[in-house]
Amino acid sequence: MVGGGQLARMTHQAAVALGQSLHVLAVSADEPAPLVSPNVTLGHHTDLEALRKFAAGCDVLTFDHEHVPTEHLRTLIAEGVKVQPGPDALVHAQDKLVMRRKLAELGLPIPDFAEVTSVDDLLAFGQWPCVLKAARGGYDGRGVWILDSPDDAGIVDELLAAGTPLLVEQKVPLRRELAALVARSPFGQGACWPLVETVQVDGICVEVLAPAPGVTAAQAEAAQELALRVASELDVVGVLAVELFETDAGIVVNELAMRPHNSGHWTIEGARTSQFEQHLRAVLDYPLGATDALAPAVVMANVLGAPAAPEMGPDERLHHLFARYRDAHVHYYGKQERPGRKIGHITMLGDDMADVRTRATLAAHWLSHGVWLDGYEIH
Amino acid sequence: MVGGGQLARMTHQAAVALGQSLHVLAVSADEPAPLVSPNVTLGHHTDLEALRKFAAGCDVLTFDHEHVPTEHLRTLIAEGVKVQPGPDALVHAQDKLVMRRKLAELGLPIPDFAEVTSVDDLLAFGQWPCVLKAARGGYDGRGVWILDSPDDAGIVDELLAAGTPLLVEQKVPLRRELAALVARSPFGQGACWPLVETVQVDGICVEVLAPAPGVTAAQAEAAQELALRVASELDVVGVLAVELFETDAGIVVNELAMRPHNSGHWTIEGARTSQFEQHLRAVLDYPLGATDALAPAVVMANVLGAPAAPEMGPDERLHHLFARYRDAHVHYYGKQERPGRKIGHITMLGDDMADVRTRATLAAHWLSHGVWLDGYEIH
Repeated sequence: MVGGGQLARMTHQAAVALGQSLHVLAVSADEPAPLVSPNVTLGHHTDLEALRKFAAGCDVLTFDHEHVPTEHLRTLIAEGVKVQPGPDALVHAQDKLVMRRKLAELGLPIPDFAEVTSVDDLLAFGQWPCVLKAARGGYDGRGVWILDSPDDAGIVDELLAAGTPLLVEQKVPLRRELAALVARSPFGQGACWPLVETVQVDGICVEVLAPAPGVTAAQAEAAQELALRVASELDVVGVLAVELFETDAGIVVNELAMRPHNSGHWTIEGARTSQFEQHLRAVLDYPLGATDALAPAVVMANVLGAPAAPEMGPDERLHHLFARYRDAHVHYYGKQERPGRKIGHITMLGDDMADVRTRATLAAHWLSHGVWLDGYEIH
Repeated sequence: MVGGGQLARMTHQAAVALGQSLHVLAVSADEPAPLVSPNVTLGHHTDLEALRKFAAGCDVLTFDHEHVPTEHLRTLIAEGVKVQPGPDALVHAQDKLVMRRKLAELGLPIPDFAEVTSVDDLLAFGQWPCVLKAARGGYDGRGVWILDSPDDAGIVDELLAAGTPLLVEQKVPLRRELAALVARSPFGQGACWPLVETVQVDGICVEVLAPAPGVTAAQAEAAQELALRVASELDVVGVLAVELFETDAGIVVNELAMRPHNSGHWTIEGARTSQFEQHLRAVLDYPLGATDALAPAVVMANVLGAPAAPEMGPDERLHHLFARYRDAHVHYYGKQERPGRKIGHITMLGDDMADVRTRATLAAHWLSHGVWLDGYEIH
């Protein structure tokens, strides 16, 4: 697995059960995965020689992130390395413009969009407000700019001068965000988990509700079929997360990720097969596992570094959390706390979504801030 | 954790989620835990100097097995090392004679027993058949001899000459074996999982049924209370497995283990908190987690090395297993296959014990032998 972040860390846990040896290519020894795995190579994912040496010891190469240059992957494949998902699939998770064009060609619901190679392209698009995006390299709200009027168009020159490839998209009037998580094996087997709602604050996913509340079975199936179709048409191998906008007119595809994804962390305790085990099964071409949810309501809440360091240390906060919630599932990533940084997550299961969500929110806020939100309740 | 076997391996998986660094003292780098953990010290658990160096880097010392000499632990404690469970507790899992005397003193139900320092001691015990046991060092049926009559008494001289400390026990007319798994924290908090049945073949546990079928709530509670009392009286910290014989006259304590135990592997997917996470919480003095079962019937079946190597390789067998059972949870320990060796386990969950047990038995037999038991069904 190229990349040593929390996705590699949790994939390692799944690999241990399967008796597999997950090797990790990490930039630094203090990343989440190298801290817990003995099979680590240090090197940069943009360095072809490092990738080549790393791949030599692996049966199949897969990814914790989208930042390996597509051309390096093509070179590795030409040299006999097995890469899953392959570069022809992965490029759709790396390059938003390539992705938009492909989904448009497939007739799937997407926002209006256009490539932007000049201020004129943006002005010609003509919708205000609109969303300017870096075609490559953005994540967690970075690489995205909301432009309210032509007066804001100046940013285009700056970004193009800095070498950022750009596209512009219609600002979709969304009700909320959903995610359809599926997996696909090289054999072509597909599997999908229940459709989830991803609750976003400032472009960062803070909570995932499984299943997405207030969605009919037919709507959920339509979203799952869309995701399976994307997986199949793009020849994805592994986990595919299709991030969706829910609008008054239906769902619209926002982004694609071809790896275990934050919207699927709930599956570790909340589904029969976790996304991490499923990703391994898929890239190793095992039959896929059952994806049933294990409770009527499952909520995953990210633990983000607080703006200011809490008075109480992380260990003491965990102690108090466990004293209050005997059933909280905690995942820490081994990261130092920094404002806004995803340092872990909490998963809670139960029968009632409002109750489970209240508890998960309180728990995650406590671990982040060392403060209990008094009287907080979600209805 | 002293010891690098599968218990340390699965404890590492739990430690990763909690953001803890489990350090492992292992004899060899190819044991189950060193294969998946970066924090490994090689050294022998009977070597005081190795223990001393290892302990210097740890907040608290705990165990994957019972083979660390009690006197070494006392030395380490005198030198300031925190050891959980402590030697005064652990000795009851190391020495069957010490354990029998203590449980007798507490008035708990145990078989008749006597120390054996000569053939005369055995003859004076006077019950036939009887069970001769090595007081220290036995496991999985080793160190246990069934003696049918005084004609068999000659073995005592051999064993004593070889330095094996011995005791003799009444051969209990048992219906079946049960296990009560509990955990206790230094603070004194106790938690118990549902009582289970452990199905034994030739002294080796092959299956664990959770909950134990055909046990009334009152019987289960009595067994759990007994186990919690043992934990409290012996000042156990961590997981305690109390192996029980079920007889016509009630339950009788067979053995104690003070660590995660084969009878608790089902808790990884079958209970809200696994025994591995709970053991870590206990030895680190966190509040303990909820122990509710997550399905009406959970079965864990050990995967044992087959008498002869199956035609199909382990990877291909796993492939077929996943194709047949989409909901099977597989745990491999990274061990080479050898006849009778515990190389992994399978866990299945469901609503009906007979059905779940049939599936788990078929699955484990398939992984062991590469043969599906045709028409096999448990009623």
